[in-house]
Amino acid sequence: MTKPPSQLSPCIILAKPQMGENIGATARAMANFGLTDLRLIAPRDGWPNPKAEGMSTGAFEHLAPVQVFDTLKDAAHDCHALYATTARPRDMVKPVLAPRAAMQEARAHMGEGQKVGFVFGGEQSGMDNDDLALCGAIVQVPTNPEFSSLNLAQAVLLVVSQFAEDEVACAPRPKDSPPATKEELFAFLDRLESELEAANFFKAEGLKPTMVRNIQNIFTRNDLSEQEVRTLQGILSALTKA
Amino acid sequence: MTKPPSQLSPCIILAKPQMGENIGATARAMANFGLTDLRLIAPRDGWPNPKAEGMSTGAFEHLAPVQVFDTLKDAAHDCHALYATTARPRDMVKPVLAPRAAMQEARAHMGEGQKVGFVFGGEQSGMDNDDLALCGAIVQVPTNPEFSSLNLAQAVLLVVSQFAEDEVACAPRPKDSPPATKEELFAFLDRLESELEAANFFKAEGLKPTMVRNIQNIFTRNDLSEQEVRTLQGILSALTKA
Repeated sequence: MTKPPSQLSPCIILAKPQMGENIGATARAMANFGLTDLRLIAPRDGWPNPKAEGMSTGAFEHLAPVQVFDTLKDAAHDCHALYATTARPRDMVKPVLAPRAAMQEARAHMGEGQKVGFVFGGEQSGMDNDDLALCGAIVQVPTNPEFSSLNLAQAVLLVVSQFAEDEVACAPRPKDSPPATKEELFAFLDRLESELEAANFFKAEGLKPTMVRNIQNIFTRNDLSEQEVRTLQGILSALTKA
Repeated sequence: MTKPPSQLSPCIILAKPQMGENIGATARAMANFGLTDLRLIAPRDGWPNPKAEGMSTGAFEHLAPVQVFDTLKDAAHDCHALYATTARPRDMVKPVLAPRAAMQEARAHMGEGQKVGFVFGGEQSGMDNDDLALCGAIVQVPTNPEFSSLNLAQAVLLVVSQFAEDEVACAPRPKDSPPATKEELFAFLDRLESELEAANFFKAEGLKPTMVRNIQNIFTRNDLSEQEVRTLQGILSALTKA
């Protein structure tokens, strides 16, 4: 992951958070995915909070200084787009997006130099309607309707983890030793066939071609490394010498 | 989200978990996304664990009874595909997938009626290399390299949350014969190890663990069929009888 410039980090806004532990876990989740801008609205236990520090496992060093505000209007003053992470409101008409779709939309805003904020309500009562009314869209995590309650920091994690994902969806895989050439692999397969012939493995001559193909299918499917083909050769030597 | 039938739930396997709280938070994350099959390998504080219960906020009622095993070989016996959730190993060649891609692949397996397992190491040291060698692929959460450490339950959450998300179409792979269970594969690997021991393959005793892991890595890449494991057994019989 390339760390994004901090002006492009969406801000995470916790509205009236109660437990310092959840603020710390929020900071940890943000740092895990390269977000740097954490804002608090009227945290119950004030700020700074030693319990947040303890739970953060050092994450605050990777964030910009935390900013504390009295209201969402203050906290979101420089945002261009504001998402409320909450259950679907019954009495307001707003777009509802899953975290991935919301982050895609947020990226489009950020790509134009805009500031995006994600707002999370407090542990007990979630976001109040006044704050919700200030947000342009709802982010809703698609949880099991029979067991839907997420902890605050878990909800944050599921949103911020979308920030890094696509860039690294398929990392190249490391190789200790270079991949085997087909020549090396086929040499092993030829030798295996000879040894099996000698061991009377192919009892019915008519079935031999199919059996050989089946064996080749086992070993040709995955890209074996040079070292692995050498290991297979060694196994064959050991078993036939015994 | 429609709750999936429990036989299609991937299983979550915690290898040597230490804190009951993390087991409880794992159960909560699973229930949030409709997974039901939790297995523990040698939990430090035994099982059941009141701290797990407390942290679960009632999630265990939404899960099948938790199963406890001594080893990964036992815990994964009925799985057809096994994913290790860990940092990228330096000395093993395995596919590395982000959680979303891994869950897409897992869905393709499950769509064919196969059982999929996701393995998570303990809090202190993660997965050990012996267990890692038994898994076909690595799931790696694409975290910020400068602050990459995830709590165990957070890692579980980021994997299981992929289970509910998008409907994914993955073309089923044609199969001549049903996929092997890990139990069938491990039986072959155990026998291969014994035969190699008898053939004096592991000359330097100190190197044996590494050599065994290297061999397991060749064969544990996912997707051997029952027929292919039988073929490997037959090859071994033929070579050792000769």
